[in-house]
Amino acid sequence: MPAIVDRSPLLVAISSSGASPVLTRKIKELNETMLPNRIDQLARLLQSYREKIKTEIPNFSSRVNFWEQLLESDIPELVYSGQQELARASLEEKLAAADSIPKTGEVYLVGAGPGDPDLLTLKALRLMHKADVVLYDRLVSDEIMSKLRPDAEKIHVGKARANHSMEQESINELLVRLANEGKKVLRLKGGDPFIFGRGGEELQTLAENEIPFQIVPGITAASGCAAYAGIPLTHRDYAQSVRFMTGHRVAEGKNLDWKSMARDQQTLVFYMGLHGLENICVSLIDHGMKASMPVAVIQQGTTKTQRVLCSELGSLVEVAAEANLQAPTIIIIGEVVKLRNDLEWFQSGA
Amino acid sequence: MPAIVDRSPLLVAISSSGASPVLTRKIKELNETMLPNRIDQLARLLQSYREKIKTEIPNFSSRVNFWEQLLESDIPELVYSGQQELARASLEEKLAAADSIPKTGEVYLVGAGPGDPDLLTLKALRLMHKADVVLYDRLVSDEIMSKLRPDAEKIHVGKARANHSMEQESINELLVRLANEGKKVLRLKGGDPFIFGRGGEELQTLAENEIPFQIVPGITAASGCAAYAGIPLTHRDYAQSVRFMTGHRVAEGKNLDWKSMARDQQTLVFYMGLHGLENICVSLIDHGMKASMPVAVIQQGTTKTQRVLCSELGSLVEVAAEANLQAPTIIIIGEVVKLRNDLEWFQSGA
Repeated sequence: MPAIVDRSPLLVAISSSGASPVLTRKIKELNETMLPNRIDQLARLLQSYREKIKTEIPNFSSRVNFWEQLLESDIPELVYSGQQELARASLEEKLAAADSIPKTGEVYLVGAGPGDPDLLTLKALRLMHKADVVLYDRLVSDEIMSKLRPDAEKIHVGKARANHSMEQESINELLVRLANEGKKVLRLKGGDPFIFGRGGEELQTLAENEIPFQIVPGITAASGCAAYAGIPLTHRDYAQSVRFMTGHRVAEGKNLDWKSMARDQQTLVFYMGLHGLENICVSLIDHGMKASMPVAVIQQGTTKTQRVLCSELGSLVEVAAEANLQAPTIIIIGEVVKLRNDLEWFQSGA
Repeated sequence: MPAIVDRSPLLVAISSSGASPVLTRKIKELNETMLPNRIDQLARLLQSYREKIKTEIPNFSSRVNFWEQLLESDIPELVYSGQQELARASLEEKLAAADSIPKTGEVYLVGAGPGDPDLLTLKALRLMHKADVVLYDRLVSDEIMSKLRPDAEKIHVGKARANHSMEQESINELLVRLANEGKKVLRLKGGDPFIFGRGGEELQTLAENEIPFQIVPGITAASGCAAYAGIPLTHRDYAQSVRFMTGHRVAEGKNLDWKSMARDQQTLVFYMGLHGLENICVSLIDHGMKASMPVAVIQQGTTKTQRVLCSELGSLVEVAAEANLQAPTIIIIGEVVKLRNDLEWFQSGA
C-alpha cells in the first residue's frame, strides 16, 4: 500500500509524467538524506502500537497530540541509534502516563537568515513545519514565509525603527499568551536572533513565565552578505578580527570607541548602517582611518535584488546618496573589501 | 507508475509497515516544502524532450551530464516562476549547443556550521548531494559527513594548528587541480568560511586560475554556541556590539588592542580560545576589565557533547584547568554571559 504516493499530488504528478531519471534521483536523494536511515524501524515500532494507542486514548485529538509527542520524544533518536528495547520501554512508559500529559505550549526562537530562503537551516525549516502560530517581522521575506505550514496562523509584528521599545513589550506578552494557550509558537526573525535580534529580551519574558523554548541560530546578515558579495570578513593579510555594530546606535549619537575602530587589521560591520552613515565616515576619518579605506554597502544581501556599492570612506556619503540606497543594508569597512575585485561571484537580477 | 516509491527502499519500508498518519504527514510535508510547487510542470517539460535529447546526445554519460546541466540552469527557475515558454526556448537553445558544452569543474566553498548537522543550510545540503569530491577538515563532524552523496570521493585535509601555512598551499593547489579535471568540488569547512575559515585565501587561488566558484555561508561558531548556551551576543542593556577574535593570535603574542577590548557594553568572542587563555584573562584585567566579569567557555558547542563552563575572568584559568577542557572551544566574555542563568535550554548528553 504505497500510501504516501497515493496521497501526494506532487509525487503522483512526477511519477506519472515519467520524470527524467536525474530529477527522480534528486528527489530520492532528498528523501533519503533528509530522513534518518532507520526511519523504517521507527515506522514499524509505531505501527505495532497503533491499536493499543487507539484503545488507550479514544479521543481523536488527544491521540493525534500523543503521536506528535512520541515523534518529538527521545524515541526516534533511540531507534535511530539502534536502541530498540529502550525505545519500546519509553513508549510503554509514555502510554501509561498518557492521561496525565498536559498540552503545553512552547516557543521556538528561530533565525531565518539574511534573505535567501536557501540559507534557512534544516532545523529552522523543521520548526517552521511544526508551529501552530508564527510571529514574524518585516525582515523575513515572502519566499521564506511560503515555507511555513500552510494552516499556521501568521501574525505580523514588524516594527518601524522608531517605535521598537513600545512594541517589544506587546510582542513579549503575545508570545507568553499564545504559549499558555498550549500552542507551538514560532518567533521568526531575520538573521540571527542573538546578534542585534533582541532575542534575549523576548526570551527573558518567557523564562520569567516558565515557558519552554528552543533557540535556533540563523546566518547573520554580516556573514551572508559577505559570502554573497565575495568579501571575506577575516583574512590573514588584512584583518585578524571583526566587529559588529549598529548604525542605529551611531545615529543616536552614542559615544562610540572611534579611536579603536579606526585601527587597521580589522573589519568593521555596521548593521542598519544607512542611519548614521555620514557620522560613521566622518568619525572614522577624524580618528585616523585613511579616507581611501575601501567600503562596501550591501543592500538586500543574498536576495535576487542584492546591490553592492563599493567606494572609499572619504567619498561614501556622496556616492551612497547618488545610488539612492534603501534599507536593509550592511556596511563593511576594511581592506578586505578590495578582495571583492577577485572574489565577486553572485549574480543578482531576475 | 510510481517509480519513486518502487525504487526507494525507505519509502517502501514506511508504506508497507502502515506507518502512523502523523509520520506519513511529516514525510509528505518534507517533500512538499522542500520541493518547489511547480516541480510537476518541470517534470512534464523535461519528459517531453526525453526522446529528442536521447537522439541528439547518444553518448550515455554526456547525456547524464546534459540532464544535470539542465537542472542547474535557469530552466527550473523559469518554470517555477510560470515562464514556461522561456523555459522551453532556453532548453531548445541548450540542446542546439549541446555539442559544444565543455565539462567544466566548479568549487563550492561551503560552511558546515558549528557541529549540529541540523544547522546545515538547505543550500549546503544541496551542494553536498551534488559534489563529486569533498575536501574537509577535522572540524566537520561524522554526522555531517554522513549526509554527503554516498559515492563522493572524500579527502581529509584536516590540519594541525601548527602547520597551517604549509598545508594551505597544497589545499589550494588540490582544489585547482580537481576543478580542472572537470569535477564539482566541495570545500567543506566548519563554521563560516569567511570568519576565521581562511576561505578568502583558497578562493584567491581559484580566481587566479579562473575556476568558477560559489560561496555558502555557514552558522559561525560564535552564533551557534551562543544560541545553544543561551547567551545573547548583543542585548540592549549589556552589549551594543560584538567582536570576534582568535586565541591563536593572542598565543602568538601579537599586539592586540586590549584597552579597547576591556571597555564595557560589548561582548568579546575568542575562537580557538584555549590557546592563549591565560594571556587573554591577564591582559583584559591589566587593561581595566573587572575580575568579576562573567565568562563562558563552550566546548564542542551545539553537539551532543557540548560543555559550557561559566566562571569569572579572574578565576577562569584555574577553573578551566580543573575542567580539563579540550578544543574546539569558543570563549564568550561580557555581561551577557549571566543571562544564561535564565536562558539555558539545550540539554547535551547521549
